[in-house]
Amino acid sequence: MLKVIISGCNGAMGQVLTKTIEAMEDAEIAAGIDKNVDRCKNNYEVYSEISDYKGNADVIIDFSNPAGLEGLLNYGIETKTPIVIATTGLSSENMDNIKKASEKIAVFQSGNTSLGINVLTSLVKKAAAVLSESFDIEIIEKHHNKKVDAPSGTAYMIANAINNELNNSKEFIYGREGIRKREKNEIGIHAVRGGTIAGEHTVIFAGMDEIIEIKHTAMSKNIFAQGAVKAAKYLVNQDKGLYNMDDLLS
Amino acid sequence: MLKVIISGCNGAMGQVLTKTIEAMEDAEIAAGIDKNVDRCKNNYEVYSEISDYKGNADVIIDFSNPAGLEGLLNYGIETKTPIVIATTGLSSENMDNIKKASEKIAVFQSGNTSLGINVLTSLVKKAAAVLSESFDIEIIEKHHNKKVDAPSGTAYMIANAINNELNNSKEFIYGREGIRKREKNEIGIHAVRGGTIAGEHTVIFAGMDEIIEIKHTAMSKNIFAQGAVKAAKYLVNQDKGLYNMDDLLS
Amino acid sequence: MLKVIISGCNGAMGQVLTKTIEAMEDAEIAAGIDKNVDRCKNNYEVYSEISDYKGNADVIIDFSNPAGLEGLLNYGIETKTPIVIATTGLSSENMDNIKKASEKIAVFQSGNTSLGINVLTSLVKKAAAVLSESFDIEIIEKHHNKKVDAPSGTAYMIANAINNELNNSKEFIYGREGIRKREKNEIGIHAVRGGTIAGEHTVIFAGMDEIIEIKHTAMSKNIFAQGAVKAAKYLVNQDKGLYNMDDLLS
Amino acid sequence: MLKVIISGCNGAMGQVLTKTIEAMEDAEIAAGIDKNVDRCKNNYEVYSEISDYKGNADVIIDFSNPAGLEGLLNYGIETKTPIVIATTGLSSENMDNIKKASEKIAVFQSGNTSLGINVLTSLVKKAAAVLSESFDIEIIEKHHNKKVDAPSGTAYMIANAINNELNNSKEFIYGREGIRKREKNEIGIHAVRGGTIAGEHTVIFAGMDEIIEIKHTAMSKNIFAQGAVKAAKYLVNQDKGLYNMDDLLS
Repeated sequence: MLKVIISGCNGAMGQVLTKTIEAMEDAEIAAGIDKNVDRCKNNYEVYSEISDYKGNADVIIDFSNPAGLEGLLNYGIETKTPIVIATTGLSSENMDNIKKASEKIAVFQSGNTSLGINVLTSLVKKAAAVLSESFDIEIIEKHHNKKVDAPSGTAYMIANAINNELNNSKEFIYGREGIRKREKNEIGIHAVRGGTIAGEHTVIFAGMDEIIEIKHTAMSKNIFAQGAVKAAKYLVNQDKGLYNMDDLLS
Repeated sequence: MLKVIISGCNGAMGQVLTKTIEAMEDAEIAAGIDKNVDRCKNNYEVYSEISDYKGNADVIIDFSNPAGLEGLLNYGIETKTPIVIATTGLSSENMDNIKKASEKIAVFQSGNTSLGINVLTSLVKKAAAVLSESFDIEIIEKHHNKKVDAPSGTAYMIANAINNELNNSKEFIYGREGIRKREKNEIGIHAVRGGTIAGEHTVIFAGMDEIIEIKHTAMSKNIFAQGAVKAAKYLVNQDKGLYNMDDLLS
Repeated sequence: MLKVIISGCNGAMGQVLTKTIEAMEDAEIAAGIDKNVDRCKNNYEVYSEISDYKGNADVIIDFSNPAGLEGLLNYGIETKTPIVIATTGLSSENMDNIKKASEKIAVFQSGNTSLGINVLTSLVKKAAAVLSESFDIEIIEKHHNKKVDAPSGTAYMIANAINNELNNSKEFIYGREGIRKREKNEIGIHAVRGGTIAGEHTVIFAGMDEIIEIKHTAMSKNIFAQGAVKAAKYLVNQDKGLYNMDDLLS
Repeated sequence: MLKVIISGCNGAMGQVLTKTIEAMEDAEIAAGIDKNVDRCKNNYEVYSEISDYKGNADVIIDFSNPAGLEGLLNYGIETKTPIVIATTGLSSENMDNIKKASEKIAVFQSGNTSLGINVLTSLVKKAAAVLSESFDIEIIEKHHNKKVDAPSGTAYMIANAINNELNNSKEFIYGREGIRKREKNEIGIHAVRGGTIAGEHTVIFAGMDEIIEIKHTAMSKNIFAQGAVKAAKYLVNQDKGLYNMDDLLS
């Protein structure tokens, strides 16, 4: 039985993770950590600071935000507890601290813990390496009409992975209007917004008389919680070090 | 046997129409008209001006350009020959002349003679009328990497048809980047470019927990030639007047 | 404020409807009816028979099963309460009783109250009427791996609607293996099963060098609850009679 | 300038290959071989037997059928000419002969020389290896209404590649009708037929709340000709041995 501390338990993803773990037979929630201690009704104790928790746990899963990172890392080091960091918006200073901590404990870091999105990214990189010479690459992403940023962070993650694979030879454009022919080095990234679409990312490789498309459809945020738990199960069997989704998938 | 004069016979669409009619058993080419008389090797006579042709014909199909329109209309009126006008880029003056001619002969006018595209447009208008209150509308079109204009004329045709149906309450946008939430009255039109894609148009109606998509895929320019011949066969049985694809489909 | 009695409130759809109405500002639940009175924890009273309920209501929405139909209709007639019947598996005797009741009260009957599915069906019928001569029709439906029947009831509903439109000239087949050419009068219906797919139906019209596809994607069962409430709001403003989704959409 | 002998030059693929090479600047056709010497009008000499050809060539591309294989291999060995064998329907005896020949000359063998289809297959194998535990796999293929066999050879090629990757644990089914739940080890292969669809293959990995789809669309048979020429260019720079699309792509 994997005992998990959920950091950021009262946020949207924290609550999804709560339900995911409560439905599992081989994992349970040891405690929750959240600045807003009383925001949600949970079946476990919630503390505003992780240092207030005096019990033990096998692993911490962090879906909060970078503000509490230092406290988490210190707690992890002191108690030898591995940490899965699934927050987004980490600064380079945050990343430095994570690296330092990983010299003492096992740390898993990914801004996108969906198994499927990471498999997609890995397939897309492989396809780009083989096809980029004679195929044009475009990305379409679709999300609900409440999303405030475009393109999605995941679309950028995929586009950057392609660009890195191709020696940063590509330029991103975000729409086309008027008279202008496509340049060979463009990657068009198209952000569709409508209804309650949970998230869809399609990478198109269009060549001479043939097209390859690789598409990921998310039906809910559960996929991030499931991937985070999968990462946690993997992490508790690793030595100290810094791990990510590539390690999980290989 | 339908005897057809092809106006603009040595252009790209004129040559496609040539092959389409030559493969048919109930139609044949009476003559071709083209400023560039010798550009292509045809199995029929080609004249630089339609007035030079002294034979007869059942119908004219025009895939040239607006410059020769006046001559065509005059010829049609004098010889009582119905005309299918499938050129694009007609001015309002051109349209006035077409209307005047249609008081004397049968004229069919459409900038897009694809049966499928017109069916799609008709379905989309119907869907928009029923769904627009609670569904968001977006359009994705895909074409080859040599296409110089974006969005495609067909995408504009579809978007305008939706907008007319909805009392011109919609605003078109051509891409999304940065921090900005979707407005209810937006129609996002996304132009994907790559490889040799002949033409794809998808209209998305995204609502609360459900999505309706209506998509047209063109595999070649044949569809415009086939639709033009279909229009010609329809037109030869009509009285004087101005007809379009809606008449053909109803 | 629309006061609703939910018949079958403790079934899967009854619970979805409960959440849908509880989230609305202009509707509320008057009472629930269910044989299994205690199965779910509801914020409203539940009765095993509708005749036990002594309060009033504006409308009944029935997501139970045909067994309780007679009691519902009698209650509706006696109390002049309109009824939305959204159950499936109605016999012709059931339908006769519904018709008889509709001579006294307003009754709405549909085995599929999703707005989107009904719009799709209406579009597909229109497309079939125009395209069937020269286009082949195929249907692909996708559902989760727990679904026990194939093709889905909705796929049959769509296929039958097409077939009725085309004078029952079509024959359904459910897969292809071996050496055999497609017959013109076939409609291939393909049932894909996998993961947690909530429901996807695509109708393909494949012609000479062009394809039209009309696709509906359901993200959850909410769409049936939303459509049923929409029907209820419509029904309370109607005279006695039998109504269905076509009335709602026109 | 690559000098190519086309074996099977008067078949459908031979004629496509003819046009492909005639449009290239760095390749030309040395001669054609075909039992039906006079069936097509070609701009090059055609011989009924390869042994009748007394000129030289850099490479042979074979799109004929297994009947002429022995003659081709003998000619290749005698004249030290590499051979690209792109025919289908090879027996195990044919394969043995090819292997023997490859001990003396460079031989490339693939029943599907499309670059895209081979990339798709390679991506699908990788995805299957990572996802098969918790994702269901299904395949949809679409072809024109004249195709006599179902599923397509390419669909079988993809399905077998997946099955080999997964220790032959999978069973193929070709449609679903009636009451029966999906078994975990099934791969549903769905053959859609309609219009003039050149060829579409989609592999679906459907998991818990997420789906990955990998899709290949062929717009024409050119892709097989282009891949065969690519293979030929690769082969003339190789030592004796047996090569296939995996070698070309790695």
